[in-house]
Amino acid sequence: MPLITFQPSGKKTNVPAGTNLLDACHRAGMGVPASCGGKGLCGKCRVRIVSGKVPPHVGYEQALSPSEAAAGWRLACLVSVESDLVVDVGETSAIRSVILTDFGGVRPEPDHEVKSVPLELPKPSLADQTCDIGRIMRGLGLEEYPRCALALMQQLARKLREHDFRINAVLFGNELLAVEKFRPESRALGLAVDIGTTTVAGLLFDLQSGQALAVASRTNPQAVHGDDVVTRIDYANRGDEARKKLQGLIVGALGEILAETCASASAETGEVFFIAVGGNTTMHHLLLGLEPVNIAASPYIPVAKRGWLTRASHVGLRAGEGARLYTVPNISAYVGGDIVAGLLAYDLHNCDETVLLVDVGTNGEIALRADGATYACSTAAGPAFEGARISCGMRAATGAISVVGKRDGKFFIETIDDAPARGLCGTGLLDAVALLLDCGLLDETGYLLDRDEAKDACPELAERIIEDKTGTAFLLAEKSNGHPHLALTQKDIREFQLAKGAVAAGVRVLLETVGKNTSDLTRVCLAGGFGSYLKPASALRTGLLPQGIKPGAVEAVGNSALAGTRLCLLSGRMRDEAERIAREVKYIELSGQLSFQEAFTDEMEFPV
Amino acid sequence: MPLITFQPSGKKTNVPAGTNLLDACHRAGMGVPASCGGKGLCGKCRVRIVSGKVPPHVGYEQALSPSEAAAGWRLACLVSVESDLVVDVGETSAIRSVILTDFGGVRPEPDHEVKSVPLELPKPSLADQTCDIGRIMRGLGLEEYPRCALALMQQLARKLREHDFRINAVLFGNELLAVEKFRPESRALGLAVDIGTTTVAGLLFDLQSGQALAVASRTNPQAVHGDDVVTRIDYANRGDEARKKLQGLIVGALGEILAETCASASAETGEVFFIAVGGNTTMHHLLLGLEPVNIAASPYIPVAKRGWLTRASHVGLRAGEGARLYTVPNISAYVGGDIVAGLLAYDLHNCDETVLLVDVGTNGEIALRADGATYACSTAAGPAFEGARISCGMRAATGAISVVGKRDGKFFIETIDDAPARGLCGTGLLDAVALLLDCGLLDETGYLLDRDEAKDACPELAERIIEDKTGTAFLLAEKSNGHPHLALTQKDIREFQLAKGAVAAGVRVLLETVGKNTSDLTRVCLAGGFGSYLKPASALRTGLLPQGIKPGAVEAVGNSALAGTRLCLLSGRMRDEAERIAREVKYIELSGQLSFQEAFTDEMEFPV
Repeated sequence: MPLITFQPSGKKTNVPAGTNLLDACHRAGMGVPASCGGKGLCGKCRVRIVSGKVPPHVGYEQALSPSEAAAGWRLACLVSVESDLVVDVGETSAIRSVILTDFGGVRPEPDHEVKSVPLELPKPSLADQTCDIGRIMRGLGLEEYPRCALALMQQLARKLREHDFRINAVLFGNELLAVEKFRPESRALGLAVDIGTTTVAGLLFDLQSGQALAVASRTNPQAVHGDDVVTRIDYANRGDEARKKLQGLIVGALGEILAETCASASAETGEVFFIAVGGNTTMHHLLLGLEPVNIAASPYIPVAKRGWLTRASHVGLRAGEGARLYTVPNISAYVGGDIVAGLLAYDLHNCDETVLLVDVGTNGEIALRADGATYACSTAAGPAFEGARISCGMRAATGAISVVGKRDGKFFIETIDDAPARGLCGTGLLDAVALLLDCGLLDETGYLLDRDEAKDACPELAERIIEDKTGTAFLLAEKSNGHPHLALTQKDIREFQLAKGAVAAGVRVLLETVGKNTSDLTRVCLAGGFGSYLKPASALRTGLLPQGIKPGAVEAVGNSALAGTRLCLLSGRMRDEAERIAREVKYIELSGQLSFQEAFTDEMEFPV
Repeated sequence: MPLITFQPSGKKTNVPAGTNLLDACHRAGMGVPASCGGKGLCGKCRVRIVSGKVPPHVGYEQALSPSEAAAGWRLACLVSVESDLVVDVGETSAIRSVILTDFGGVRPEPDHEVKSVPLELPKPSLADQTCDIGRIMRGLGLEEYPRCALALMQQLARKLREHDFRINAVLFGNELLAVEKFRPESRALGLAVDIGTTTVAGLLFDLQSGQALAVASRTNPQAVHGDDVVTRIDYANRGDEARKKLQGLIVGALGEILAETCASASAETGEVFFIAVGGNTTMHHLLLGLEPVNIAASPYIPVAKRGWLTRASHVGLRAGEGARLYTVPNISAYVGGDIVAGLLAYDLHNCDETVLLVDVGTNGEIALRADGATYACSTAAGPAFEGARISCGMRAATGAISVVGKRDGKFFIETIDDAPARGLCGTGLLDAVALLLDCGLLDETGYLLDRDEAKDACPELAERIIEDKTGTAFLLAEKSNGHPHLALTQKDIREFQLAKGAVAAGVRVLLETVGKNTSDLTRVCLAGGFGSYLKPASALRTGLLPQGIKPGAVEAVGNSALAGTRLCLLSGRMRDEAERIAREVKYIELSGQLSFQEAFTDEMEFPV
């Protein structure tokens, strides 16, 4: 098996011949970015082959210049490992994902349903012939026998005696999940995960205190088989094998996030007994292995909308013994658990005002609370805000440009962790477009001025207008660190227009459906899995939200899907509430609605 | 693979070389008896090798005379099949098990928890986007989503569309077990099973009407590894493999009973969605794969006493899709679900009188209701009443002598189905001993008179006293049908004394424990898995019950374990009641009690 040595860390790993180099990097824990999921389309997985044989660079020509290719640069996703290699992946080990964890909204109140209870049980005697499970019941002070899987019951006699009746009993409500070695200060951990179409983000919690311990995120590895849900469902429809492959990919990512967050928190994955997952309906189906085929075609029917409580092992995810897996319920084929979690996180479904929740992900999901009822719809916004389909896009992680603006007449950027710029994340994208509009470098149709035209419109930024292989572009950061310059291209702006137009059109149609205007909205919660809070001003300036919304009404709430999923992780009451939301929200089908097509065409343009 | 041809049926079967001939007979459905479970100890699995090579008869010399062996007779359990054989097994195909199904006691009231509901569902449309499971919920008129295993949910989309939304939904309470092809008059069946240490008996029910459809029984195939529970636990303790083997054997027997009862009722095993099992605590542990090790040694601790509701597939039993398996709860290591079922069947635990339930199986389990509380104990009676350890013993099936007596001064027997006598079952054994005592052929110490002594005591029966290889014996039936004569030997009578002495001693000690006398008993229910009702007079005459019980108080109730298990099959309320019984009954430990040893010694003798 070929040996790969990673620089600068010096880490070595053997992989079977034929392994994809990007896969090998990820398995070895190297945070090489790949927003297209390894399809050779984003050009972001650049690595340098220091020694060893690889074939010439073929495909995606813009990604590497001939001189770069000659110097050993390759896109890792296009390289098959056939012999020993030394590969420079840059300082990826220092790259951390950024997931907002200072959620506002509803405060979590852990109900301690999942807990690990230390027990020193009296040993059996002729005077005390209580059965093994009854002894545990008594030790726990329960009135009824706890529920218990047959597999655990089959080992119970041995486990109790191996540990000499000094054990920790791990409970989920009235179910005994595991019997473990006695540990007086034991804890039970839980993982809340937002499975987005493009990005997967996880937060590890101490289920006793409700405290967040660690975060991690990944590109959704299913993206290799399509970067939107419909393409991914098409792939799943090839057969059971394909569906199982997609399930395996997302379960693999959950396993990595589990391992990474546990490592960060100096915990064992075996201490994690509950995993709560929010995501859109397709992600939910693919995780559980449900057939998504009828989601893709009219009349768009999911197998199940309700929340599921199963075992992590039933989907092949290894965590603590008997660990439970919960999926937040969905509303419809295209309004998923992420929006249920979002409504839950900010208690919007109980609100008396006219309020809007806009979750900007690969799908733009929108919920409206008006006149005591809640409505929701979904639009295919595309993954621009998550870094995909944007030439220099990346997810929110170390080195991502998250803020773009002008201060004292001068252009500036801020990057996550103040690291050298490596790409542009969603918040930076929104800021950059808003800046270009403010400076007159971008017109209402989305046309990016060339440098000559720019000199008139905004002399101080004109020199940042460049011409590269794809045409006119706006330079965000100079070449550095083995990475090419970072620029927002005309094509990127078109992608952005598609995304924001879909969201704004969805908001408009939803308001029209219930006979409301944008001015009626007293609160607009702008959510998404960004690394920092979106600037409401940028959202309004770029027309991500339709005209007429009061600026003061808009607030950025971060990853509301993750915020709500964490509530479900920590509290059974919250899971009941999520179930109620999923049942009560009225779904508005936009597909085939002429009014949506018209609004979409309008909203593609930028506000004057 | 050698080919075996069975005569007289002509049925042929191939088996791997080295297969035990008794196993081969059973797998081919030939009802060759083997009350010792195939250990070469009972001599009952006599078959004749018509052609083909088998080694000479070795072992258990009394079973076959040299001339019989020369004529091709062998004990099937001692023959390894190495080449093609033609084997005459006699008219075994006409042999049916006899299980009493006209139970008295509590009448079953099916609560229709398990049912197969035909549904013609409206197809989805843009105006009706209900999810698949929601559509079924609506069709069933439910308010909440039914529970559903992930495995079924993964196939739900496909199944609904394959059947064009015309389905049968099989429900167990609020759980969807299966989705099947539409059948307007579909039914759901259930199997109630009494797993005895020696005999396994099953009854197939229509769960809608509560009607019994078919019966079947088997020798418990675990008997090969010990004919009492302690020996069997010793075997299980050899390791996981041994425990799994015992589990596989009993699951195999359940599968055979399932197949046989379904075939009798012209049903498919796939229509059986619920299986309720009663049995002693060891049988319960071995079926579920729980470790029985701590049952065998002081202080006698079972893993779990409570009733279990799991899936049949979890123990490897194939029935209807998603079929559930329920085990009746146990009271202690040696008072099992069979006694709980017995108390339930006759509502004894709610009774205000002083009543006794005596279940005569391989273990004699005894329950006493007195002063508003219920007590129970257990004695190791041995399997005499189930045909094992009695030289001509057999279980209650066609040809078993079930009644023995004297009418108009003449000896007579009755056999099950009026067939030629093939052996002696439990009720016949009791009658035979009672007759010998009445006629003075048996004294109070258990000594069987020789023919000379008998001529004085009872001239009309004296000539039935014979001397065979084992000593003095009482002839029950002449040689016939390839079978030797049937006789009750002195050794058989000693086995009987051990069994009845243990039961009577248990009753005495239990009464003493609560300060009652035999004369206080207003009702004594005599139960066991017999093919016909025990004669109370014989039970009193032989001292199976201790002296002082009013003859009018004794009633024979048949297989109360099966009667109660069928109630649990048909009704959730009865399962709750069983749980309450198991919790409330006070267990009295006899082991190490001097009073029990003394009573046992006394009760071995026969009443004068």
